[in-house]
Amino acid sequence: MSEPARIGLLGRGTVGGAFADLISADGATIAAAAGRPVEIAGVLTRSQGDFEEILEHSEIVVELIGGIDPAREHVLAALRSGRHVVTANKQLVAQHGEELFEAARAAGVQLRFEAAVAGVVPVIRVIQESLAATEITRVFGIVNGTTNFILSEMANTGASYADALSRAQELGYAEADPSADVGGADAAAKMAILARLAFHTPVELAEVTYEGITEIRPDDLAYAKELGLSLKLLGVAELREGGLSVRVFPCFLHNGHPLAPVEGPFNAVMVEALAINEITLSGPGAGGAETATAVLGDVVSILAGEAPVHQLRRRLPIVTDVSSSFYLYLEVADRPGVLARVADVLGRNEISVESVVQRGLGDDARLVMVMHECAERRFYAALDEIATLDFIRAAPRAIRVIEAEQT
Amino acid sequence: MSEPARIGLLGRGTVGGAFADLISADGATIAAAAGRPVEIAGVLTRSQGDFEEILEHSEIVVELIGGIDPAREHVLAALRSGRHVVTANKQLVAQHGEELFEAARAAGVQLRFEAAVAGVVPVIRVIQESLAATEITRVFGIVNGTTNFILSEMANTGASYADALSRAQELGYAEADPSADVGGADAAAKMAILARLAFHTPVELAEVTYEGITEIRPDDLAYAKELGLSLKLLGVAELREGGLSVRVFPCFLHNGHPLAPVEGPFNAVMVEALAINEITLSGPGAGGAETATAVLGDVVSILAGEAPVHQLRRRLPIVTDVSSSFYLYLEVADRPGVLARVADVLGRNEISVESVVQRGLGDDARLVMVMHECAERRFYAALDEIATLDFIRAAPRAIRVIEAEQT
Repeated sequence: MSEPARIGLLGRGTVGGAFADLISADGATIAAAAGRPVEIAGVLTRSQGDFEEILEHSEIVVELIGGIDPAREHVLAALRSGRHVVTANKQLVAQHGEELFEAARAAGVQLRFEAAVAGVVPVIRVIQESLAATEITRVFGIVNGTTNFILSEMANTGASYADALSRAQELGYAEADPSADVGGADAAAKMAILARLAFHTPVELAEVTYEGITEIRPDDLAYAKELGLSLKLLGVAELREGGLSVRVFPCFLHNGHPLAPVEGPFNAVMVEALAINEITLSGPGAGGAETATAVLGDVVSILAGEAPVHQLRRRLPIVTDVSSSFYLYLEVADRPGVLARVADVLGRNEISVESVVQRGLGDDARLVMVMHECAERRFYAALDEIATLDFIRAAPRAIRVIEAEQT
Repeated sequence: MSEPARIGLLGRGTVGGAFADLISADGATIAAAAGRPVEIAGVLTRSQGDFEEILEHSEIVVELIGGIDPAREHVLAALRSGRHVVTANKQLVAQHGEELFEAARAAGVQLRFEAAVAGVVPVIRVIQESLAATEITRVFGIVNGTTNFILSEMANTGASYADALSRAQELGYAEADPSADVGGADAAAKMAILARLAFHTPVELAEVTYEGITEIRPDDLAYAKELGLSLKLLGVAELREGGLSVRVFPCFLHNGHPLAPVEGPFNAVMVEALAINEITLSGPGAGGAETATAVLGDVVSILAGEAPVHQLRRRLPIVTDVSSSFYLYLEVADRPGVLARVADVLGRNEISVESVVQRGLGDDARLVMVMHECAERRFYAALDEIATLDFIRAAPRAIRVIEAEQT
């Protein structure tokens, strides 16, 4: 295999640490994807490392310091000296994007920043690559996980804003000083970036109007529930009346809206264009490992260059006997002991029942059961046995069930 | 600007026609994204065009014929003669993927096929690029829009399978011979492709076990609703017990599941990995313009080569006076005429009310209203006027509302 690709890592906080961990844990996978092994050439923190020396030994600089200074100076120096740069720094891209893009173009290097907006949710790649030639009309969504967690908590528990914020802080979803998140400024920076990329027009951060969630009261959420609404902090960038509107505001969504079910510290972005109706992308908007995964995706894309042609790496056996949960629908004679006999067959096959609905219907009854996860082989053995019971009126019907994710 | 990139278009059915329309309608946008203008060098249909001649004049071949023969032969010939290929052909990639990948690698050209799975939903790009260096553990979702439409129709209207299928055929969501869709074979081919890409291991189409939806009855859906479940035809590829399980089956999802709200002819795919929890991608899974947009995205990615650095194309004004729907919460004295006076202020500002909830609370009452969309300027003028009314007990509270999409 070829020479390792050497990464200069600026910053080793939560995301920087997680990135270094991914590099050392998944070396073989990364090398296969990138076409070359990847190694960290040097790490710059507040207390250690020399930027010039790290730069000299790096092919790609990964900037995870955050904030404007010294991140801006380092990123510009890296680009100007011909290094590709990957950054997760939304403020830097929102406030100094044009200067950075210009430096990258002049040096003929790549500048990637997927992690700057919605973490590992690949909204920047989709806008810049999948939909590069498509006239986008609107980009909007939930781009701040802290506020989405707080609003979900208020809606689901009736908590006040202050209590929900404390809970978010306890769980690490909100910072000690949460003002940039809850005031809407964080979402505004992300929407400035998305608007610029989607509409190919300059968007200054100062032009993005924003409101936060600090004035939301439990009453708003309680009444909204009666009206079939859920509350989100939305960022919206859209073509309107010959211009562009870019705003962040708390907003009710009707329950049928694709963003309505997005709860907790998650992000979700919708991209609309005439030709495609809409695409929705959702997932974790923050978190060290998640954000580091987005950074790593950018690093690998730089190294792989043009889209690599798919290559097999292993030969896994295809397994068919797996475990599932099942729904079971039985038409049975309506007489005592039926449920007990069905339950007995299930029990002997080590299948446990999660819920049962039984309903009479003339001489017959319908028995609907949902099972906990079990080996399919055992379930089907039980099913064959149940089908032979004398009170069964029609062939049993079984359908798999997937439970809601624990999020 | 440089020489145009010349495309050889094989097939001019629904998707081929839509692709040609996009090329002629969006020329400037495409040229800006690709770095060069794009033009169609020749079109091969059953009745016209000569493949060898089209190949000779093309830099990229776009295969939209479908089926195995003659698509396979043409794609192989194009790759071997050094042309990049974009295809939307799921059967071709599922059944002959390795042969095609091998030919592309040998010739050093790109082979892209985003449109083969889930149309414009960028699941292949996300798996192959964003998550290229991430150990994926599970890929699953709704990859057949026909069956999702039929199941939604049965659940929402109580229709039988046969009636829902007829409705899908009337609306163009199902073919005259729907067997590949409703029987699960179409979804199986897509899951074979996704499994191969996500897990880097060979997956033969014959190894994918599948069931369809032809045996589903309205009763299943009615009982499921009582249990808080919705029914989807799911494709699941996952690491299990040292091997890989790839299956397609109808399955109930609990209502909190991210795929539960996906209704109608839509697709949605979830990708899970330890480091990222999960990403969900959803959107239209079929349709001429949508699929053609995915094909165009692949063409532009080939031409743009490495990720292009963002470049401004225009300078749009930022507008701030837009239209919105609003929720309005008023604490008022509980006396006659209050609602009429609020409604009068709204009416004079040309704001119409969609719904009202009024509730007494001792001497006070709470009035919660949702407005239809109106100019924000007018709404805020009305709000200022309402705030001065003598029966208002606290500052009015207004929050924007977004209605459910019409899908």
